[in-house]
Amino acid sequence: MVKNTYMRWRLPLICLLWEIAMIILFGVFVRFDPEADAHWKEEWHQKNLTSDIENDFYFRYPSFQDVHVMIFVGFGFLMTFLQRYGFGAVGFNFLLAAFGIQWALLMQGWFHSFENGKILIGVENLINADFCVGSVCIAFGAILGKTSPVQLLTLTLFQVTLFAVNEYILISLLHVKDAGGSMTIHTFGAYFGLTVTRILYRPNLEQSKDKQGSVYHSDLFAMIGTLYLWMYWPSFNSAVSNHGDAQHRAAINTYCSLASCVLTTVAFSSLLQKKGKLDMVHIQNATLAGGVAVGTSAEMMLTPYGSLIVGFLCGIVSTAGFVYLMPFLESKLKIQDTCGIHNLHAMPGLIGGIVGAVTAAAATEEVYGKEGLISAFDFTGDYKDWTPTVQGGFQAAGIFVSLAMALAGGAIVGAILKLPFLGDPADENCFEDDVYWEVPEDEESGLYHMHDPTLKPVTS
Amino acid sequence: MVKNTYMRWRLPLICLLWEIAMIILFGVFVRFDPEADAHWKEEWHQKNLTSDIENDFYFRYPSFQDVHVMIFVGFGFLMTFLQRYGFGAVGFNFLLAAFGIQWALLMQGWFHSFENGKILIGVENLINADFCVGSVCIAFGAILGKTSPVQLLTLTLFQVTLFAVNEYILISLLHVKDAGGSMTIHTFGAYFGLTVTRILYRPNLEQSKDKQGSVYHSDLFAMIGTLYLWMYWPSFNSAVSNHGDAQHRAAINTYCSLASCVLTTVAFSSLLQKKGKLDMVHIQNATLAGGVAVGTSAEMMLTPYGSLIVGFLCGIVSTAGFVYLMPFLESKLKIQDTCGIHNLHAMPGLIGGIVGAVTAAAATEEVYGKEGLISAFDFTGDYKDWTPTVQGGFQAAGIFVSLAMALAGGAIVGAILKLPFLGDPADENCFEDDVYWEVPEDEESGLYHMHDPTLKPVTS
Amino acid sequence: MVKNTYMRWRLPLICLLWEIAMIILFGVFVRFDPEADAHWKEEWHQKNLTSDIENDFYFRYPSFQDVHVMIFVGFGFLMTFLQRYGFGAVGFNFLLAAFGIQWALLMQGWFHSFENGKILIGVENLINADFCVGSVCIAFGAILGKTSPVQLLTLTLFQVTLFAVNEYILISLLHVKDAGGSMTIHTFGAYFGLTVTRILYRPNLEQSKDKQGSVYHSDLFAMIGTLYLWMYWPSFNSAVSNHGDAQHRAAINTYCSLASCVLTTVAFSSLLQKKGKLDMVHIQNATLAGGVAVGTSAEMMLTPYGSLIVGFLCGIVSTAGFVYLMPFLESKLKIQDTCGIHNLHAMPGLIGGIVGAVTAAAATEEVYGKEGLISAFDFTGDYKDWTPTVQGGFQAAGIFVSLAMALAGGAIVGAILKLPFLGDPADENCFEDDVYWEVPEDEESGLYHMHDPTLKPVTS
Repeated sequence: MVKNTYMRWRLPLICLLWEIAMIILFGVFVRFDPEADAHWKEEWHQKNLTSDIENDFYFRYPSFQDVHVMIFVGFGFLMTFLQRYGFGAVGFNFLLAAFGIQWALLMQGWFHSFENGKILIGVENLINADFCVGSVCIAFGAILGKTSPVQLLTLTLFQVTLFAVNEYILISLLHVKDAGGSMTIHTFGAYFGLTVTRILYRPNLEQSKDKQGSVYHSDLFAMIGTLYLWMYWPSFNSAVSNHGDAQHRAAINTYCSLASCVLTTVAFSSLLQKKGKLDMVHIQNATLAGGVAVGTSAEMMLTPYGSLIVGFLCGIVSTAGFVYLMPFLESKLKIQDTCGIHNLHAMPGLIGGIVGAVTAAAATEEVYGKEGLISAFDFTGDYKDWTPTVQGGFQAAGIFVSLAMALAGGAIVGAILKLPFLGDPADENCFEDDVYWEVPEDEESGLYHMHDPTLKPVTS
Repeated sequence: MVKNTYMRWRLPLICLLWEIAMIILFGVFVRFDPEADAHWKEEWHQKNLTSDIENDFYFRYPSFQDVHVMIFVGFGFLMTFLQRYGFGAVGFNFLLAAFGIQWALLMQGWFHSFENGKILIGVENLINADFCVGSVCIAFGAILGKTSPVQLLTLTLFQVTLFAVNEYILISLLHVKDAGGSMTIHTFGAYFGLTVTRILYRPNLEQSKDKQGSVYHSDLFAMIGTLYLWMYWPSFNSAVSNHGDAQHRAAINTYCSLASCVLTTVAFSSLLQKKGKLDMVHIQNATLAGGVAVGTSAEMMLTPYGSLIVGFLCGIVSTAGFVYLMPFLESKLKIQDTCGIHNLHAMPGLIGGIVGAVTAAAATEEVYGKEGLISAFDFTGDYKDWTPTVQGGFQAAGIFVSLAMALAGGAIVGAILKLPFLGDPADENCFEDDVYWEVPEDEESGLYHMHDPTLKPVTS
Repeated sequence: MVKNTYMRWRLPLICLLWEIAMIILFGVFVRFDPEADAHWKEEWHQKNLTSDIENDFYFRYPSFQDVHVMIFVGFGFLMTFLQRYGFGAVGFNFLLAAFGIQWALLMQGWFHSFENGKILIGVENLINADFCVGSVCIAFGAILGKTSPVQLLTLTLFQVTLFAVNEYILISLLHVKDAGGSMTIHTFGAYFGLTVTRILYRPNLEQSKDKQGSVYHSDLFAMIGTLYLWMYWPSFNSAVSNHGDAQHRAAINTYCSLASCVLTTVAFSSLLQKKGKLDMVHIQNATLAGGVAVGTSAEMMLTPYGSLIVGFLCGIVSTAGFVYLMPFLESKLKIQDTCGIHNLHAMPGLIGGIVGAVTAAAATEEVYGKEGLISAFDFTGDYKDWTPTVQGGFQAAGIFVSLAMALAGGAIVGAILKLPFLGDPADENCFEDDVYWEVPEDEESGLYHMHDPTLKPVTS
């Protein structure tokens, strides 16, 4: 079957119309948060602030920039491991994230920052928009190389919407704590993406199997993504935590969990391979599972050794997932998961939700202090009578809600993405940049084609 | 004509002599700002500070580091797209920026931080020095691949000098606001560079045309530069704004403008190409135009939707510039602009100046608050009777001054760069690293030469 | 002699056992620092803090993240210059650093943060752990490509231990100031690594000489490492300095020294090569020597021009070291130093120690102010009668202690690394990833092997 992948009218149209829609909606709804508004000096006097440094900008902006790097360089380059899909990995990730953050500012704004008919945005909204888009980047990993940019923008529109609904249910209705997003970002994003790729199952994908591998330098590009995700994950998990000790603690816990995870990833990468050699796929991905799995609990009193234990387990689970579970998912469940997000985000995300529920349920006044406990779990107002046990129960409920939203939402969105006019590539053109990109001239010289192991270099 | 590109005496001589000059001038003039001086604790008591966190270091250092990354990795790697000029792109950018920041500290210091015969430097001076060098990196983009390192250092010396004069006229004499440098950095830098490359016009440059393209991996290296520029641009535009709401607002406006710009760049990249495929040159460059174009207005109450509109337009203007204007500039006006800085910096810079003038002129007490308006535009002292309309007029004047300085300065400096002993490469050696660099051994193995599409791989 | 490089049991065993040991030790000893503990709000009231921004997190976290990038991306990518050892460079650096930071938190914690039987960790501990591991990354540079991952983990275990002892002697017993680690990190790390590589001398290493060079793109990957080290070095040298002016000053001095160093590196790279061309090895390494050499003195009143002078000299010393000293060290002293750490870390580290001692000895109340002098050198408590001259003497002593520890420690650890079951590669397999890594399929297509200049591309 010949597929029509000609993008010339479809892609520009969707980009322009949707961006115009953003402009109109921003014009109607979006204004600056008081801390970013020129009236702030007047608020200053009313709030008895003594210094500009009290502006939330200074508490969160460095973390925001780190998160921003994770979304665009981290996820973008992590996916450049494919030998002939580097442009698509970095470029489509760029496109969907740039659209997604705008739509997320609106969706999350309506739910969380809506006052007197206006959405008021500040640095925390920017971080949350990046977080929301992070879940789309995760889902993109499952369908990497198999979708058109129009499909990806469509996916982004729907997934951001569902993310915001799910987040609202968890954070606002169930009073769940999930500052680093084990549930809202990773569990939701990964199971959503896995469901979508299941719906989009391609029985003849082995036609492009030879392009699904990496080449030497593409693996090094991917390591840029890995390392930026790994290094900045402490910022990710602490970016929207409470000011002060909570941000501080979240960074420390994440640092510890990630360090531990590297060791068990290396151990199992070597152990599960007969020749005992290390596999770059594991190093690029499973080393990050420790960050995913403390996403909920990092701001709690998980303690450094607790974090080491979580990281220890996740390195094992994630690496074993790549070796044993991924082939099973593909052959038995027809889930073709290009980047292995099941191993990096889905399983560690679930673990993260569980660790968060247990850590919350185990909280005591002795460990947190009276004031600390109230502040850590926001046991004020309607929730002033909540106990850690109740909190733990609602945390657990959050896992199931996220899973349900992901599976139901992914099924619907997957079906939408099957619409024929969205321009998906034929099976033999998957994992191949030149369907949607102008590819430079080294193709002619033989170098680009040489990446294809079935071809020999051009000789005179 | 055989050119003498032998650098052994010329390059070391100029590097050593100029660095010695820097040492002497720093010795005579440069001291620490009070906030970086060991006497600061004493100032503390006098100024009734309550905390070390009031030190300007904590307000600006994270933004400084982001700007620093933009100058060295951002600009450096953005220019690595050429298949055989990666060393020159990253390496010469490194060299000229390292020299330029020292000279900028002096030049800007004499104009702005001179007290009792000494230049007092703190973190804000470091940022401004990086900004100044940013304009040189922009100009470098126009002449990339066609100049010797001695020419580039000479260019840097003069351009930094003229930048500081132009900046002084705008900021100090005309009381113009330009925190993100739409006029001082982008308009000035780009038109300066375009004038220089016009003067250095090479009628036979098509001799190295085959090397002006990219190869697959060089385009990925360039995307590292693009993404770091894109991600950190909110820091760039907010780095030297007033503490508090102004920095906060500048970051938000820039974030919005850049997001919008990506969508229209993708739309027009696909639309303007018959096959509808995306062109990496556009994605690498035009996506950044939105940051350039809010350089003046980002710290003002441009509002998020205003920013989206500016980004929307600039993505279109910049991409269309690559497709239609650039060939015209080369064939008709003899402007050979290697990186397309006319599309990324010149036009968006002008737009940025205009947007800034309009935004300033449209400012009202209602939108800014009484105190906010005075603080945003510094309507104090000699300027206490200024109105937004007056400010808008002077902003507009700033555009013309910057343009005039760029054209006149570029013409003179271009003429200087034609001096024969500066060691520029022959036409057939342009865009070729091995004129000035030791190139590693893969050349011998055929790999390096294979990048040249006219050659076939070596066969036994 | 055939070497057994089979890692399947040895590497997993050591990773798992040591990580379990970390978990147990963390469980027994490591708790949160009060500023990261949920009880912090209660401390707040006792300490009369007025804002969450007083938490040390906000003083140091941005610098911490920069240092983190230097360790993992900076050192990791700097070493990817080898044509066939990119996975080992980035991947083993990742592994040893992830283990090392955990062990460093313990070792440094016992010496410096031990209270009531517990190690209390906060953001400053994370920075110090990264610093400690930095010294291991340096030593790794000397033996890059010639060791197994098991050897590297063993090296890390011992070197971190000795680092902590040496640091304790210098900082706590000798009251030495060394915030950027010229002595504790660079001098110690480099001479330690050089001694180890001397002990591991391979007389027949020329068998893999053809793999010791770079290829075009591997040099660009290495420049990513270089630039991140260069750009973030101001954060490195200021990260653990006193709050306020000391951090501010350290950043400025380092910025100046590094800028100057680039100019003299370029000058001497060109000057010392007959054809006058620049050598990427020098640009990648010697440009960083200026940061090493102000590691001790950056937080002192070195002054910007003093910093320029130090950078000026170190660019020369380091580049000349690569050209003249390195071949001598290899042929006469049998020191095979893969990355040239003698030029980048050892000599500049010694210079840094000396500059620090002189700057300390030259300190006066006039320059620092009465209060400033006490604060800069911590002349309080037991040290309240110390003079700058005494301080300078002890600084000098610190150099000798670091050197002695490095040489003695390196000799012992080098001997341990010779144990036959640690799995080091044969001489002909050095600098070759596929001993320890699964290498992707482009090997089959001829591309990977083409990197080897002795091979021709596969032809049909």
